[in-house]
Amino acid sequence: MKIVIDGFGGDNAPDEVLKGAALAVKELGIEVIVTGEVKILEERMAALGISSDKISFAAAEGVITTEDNPKSILKEKSKTSMGVAFNMLAEGQADAAISAGSTASIVIGGTMIGKRIKGVKRTALVPLMPCLGGKRYCVLDGGANLDCRPEMLLQFAIMGSCFMKATMGIENPRVGLLNIGTEDEKGRELEQETKKLLEKAPINFLGFVEAREVPLGGVDVLITDGFTGNVFLKACEGMGALMKDALKSIFYANLKTKLGALCVKSQLKDFMAQMDYKTIGGSPLLGTAKPVFKAHGASDEAAFFGAFRQAKLFVENNAIDEMTKAIASLNIGEASENV
Amino acid sequence: MKIVIDGFGGDNAPDEVLKGAALAVKELGIEVIVTGEVKILEERMAALGISSDKISFAAAEGVITTEDNPKSILKEKSKTSMGVAFNMLAEGQADAAISAGSTASIVIGGTMIGKRIKGVKRTALVPLMPCLGGKRYCVLDGGANLDCRPEMLLQFAIMGSCFMKATMGIENPRVGLLNIGTEDEKGRELEQETKKLLEKAPINFLGFVEAREVPLGGVDVLITDGFTGNVFLKACEGMGALMKDALKSIFYANLKTKLGALCVKSQLKDFMAQMDYKTIGGSPLLGTAKPVFKAHGASDEAAFFGAFRQAKLFVENNAIDEMTKAIASLNIGEASENV
Repeated sequence: MKIVIDGFGGDNAPDEVLKGAALAVKELGIEVIVTGEVKILEERMAALGISSDKISFAAAEGVITTEDNPKSILKEKSKTSMGVAFNMLAEGQADAAISAGSTASIVIGGTMIGKRIKGVKRTALVPLMPCLGGKRYCVLDGGANLDCRPEMLLQFAIMGSCFMKATMGIENPRVGLLNIGTEDEKGRELEQETKKLLEKAPINFLGFVEAREVPLGGVDVLITDGFTGNVFLKACEGMGALMKDALKSIFYANLKTKLGALCVKSQLKDFMAQMDYKTIGGSPLLGTAKPVFKAHGASDEAAFFGAFRQAKLFVENNAIDEMTKAIASLNIGEASENV
Repeated sequence: MKIVIDGFGGDNAPDEVLKGAALAVKELGIEVIVTGEVKILEERMAALGISSDKISFAAAEGVITTEDNPKSILKEKSKTSMGVAFNMLAEGQADAAISAGSTASIVIGGTMIGKRIKGVKRTALVPLMPCLGGKRYCVLDGGANLDCRPEMLLQFAIMGSCFMKATMGIENPRVGLLNIGTEDEKGRELEQETKKLLEKAPINFLGFVEAREVPLGGVDVLITDGFTGNVFLKACEGMGALMKDALKSIFYANLKTKLGALCVKSQLKDFMAQMDYKTIGGSPLLGTAKPVFKAHGASDEAAFFGAFRQAKLFVENNAIDEMTKAIASLNIGEASENV
């Protein structure tokens, strides 16, 4: 299996990209293609003492940044490290593509260059969130599509299920529709109409779920519109930050509390790692005909390795074939609406 | 000042109501009227050894429960402990009313019996949430009105500002409009249109605010529609529960971690108290012409005391006069739409 990675995407490129690639080659048995200015990549490989076994380079010019118009990846920026990665993916020279670069460019490039699965109305970048016991759940839509229609949420539910099964090893992912109560009559027209569709879909649908249950591990796939999804995600993130700050105040209060911190150091470290977004690796762009993953912009070696690991599982378990079949079985119509 | 309280509302009524009332009489210098079956109230007062100084009883029959149709408080349940409290408020026999009973009945009873402020389109039950440093912010709408129009959110912003100024002592409450980004073009039509109104309103408007900043203390008044607001609140609640569970796992892991727990016991207790919804006291029902507070259903003596304290500050600082003037200055029109 060959995975192509944008060598100059993210805050710590190219060094952490290269280190993550080397670890992935060693641990996962894959081949990696790194895109970018080959001279720099070769120099950094040598400086880091990384063997070039199973790591190859693909020449690219410059980087697409958050300041660039994301659509420029389709034209004038198509030769950048991200553009080359997506084009190699589209041409079948790699089985999956990863980038820690500009999110908007990944969504547009991944969708337009990688193409959509037939019948998919919108692609979605899908964050994986930590919940009780170190588990993960995913949220669709996390913010790309503010106004969602029931048919879009139906497709998201199927895509999310296939993803969690393929990469997280959950046999029968529990899908919940976010609502302000679990009673049948609760919610807006969107929740009422979507529920009818999800009840008939080939997924393990739990029904309505309240936001409170989600961080406690109530679902594997959380379905909601992009506005609500984004608010939900950021509320969780803010509470996580509050928690971190509170723990600091508690443990740094005085000498006695610092002793307390020493006593729970390893448990605390484990918990912090569980809650850390970076350890999760990548967020998939779901709905594309070829596997595209976004790594966190602050990714380090371990985070890039996590993204490689996810991409490998995704390819290995034929997640895209599964999605394609399930979406085709819905017969919703084929008009694509992305971008 | 006289405050009437529903003697039989909440899980711990009437004992904790009576204890809270006694504490309020002693600490706040107010008079309290407790509604309910007088014989039972007298017996419990005697059993608890509470002096009847400045505590009087108003006879009522039975209780309205969450199983009752909330509108029954207007007719067949008007003689219940909650019904009598609201009617005394409406008739001017008390300056404010408190109940820990059924939320829906409080909203309907408080709004219909207590009446609306002239021009107010909808009343809102306003939760106070904990944020960084033990501070509080309020959310409007927290779930009552799923579909909100910009003019409703404008009124909520004014009502929330007046409330935070009167009861929390915040001179110039910071009002934020919840959105998925802070850039001008972000959000749905609701956020775009509401922003224009809030920019011209007599409030300290910060502009758009992301959910992440709210638990970190970014605003005093958070404005959003009831669906999003409810999801936001419950996401925060769920993360709080996750945090509590995680702390338990960390500290109960083994003997060494239990020693660690002892070292931070007092700091941890303080933090837990800050995050506890009960210590906040009551949620006001804003938009009513007379002050109505809902205490948490699980309220104990301290929580009831907190509700009395809030109600007293609310009355003392003429919050309703302030709201009435501000709402009148908007000239939005006078059609009321509640219930």
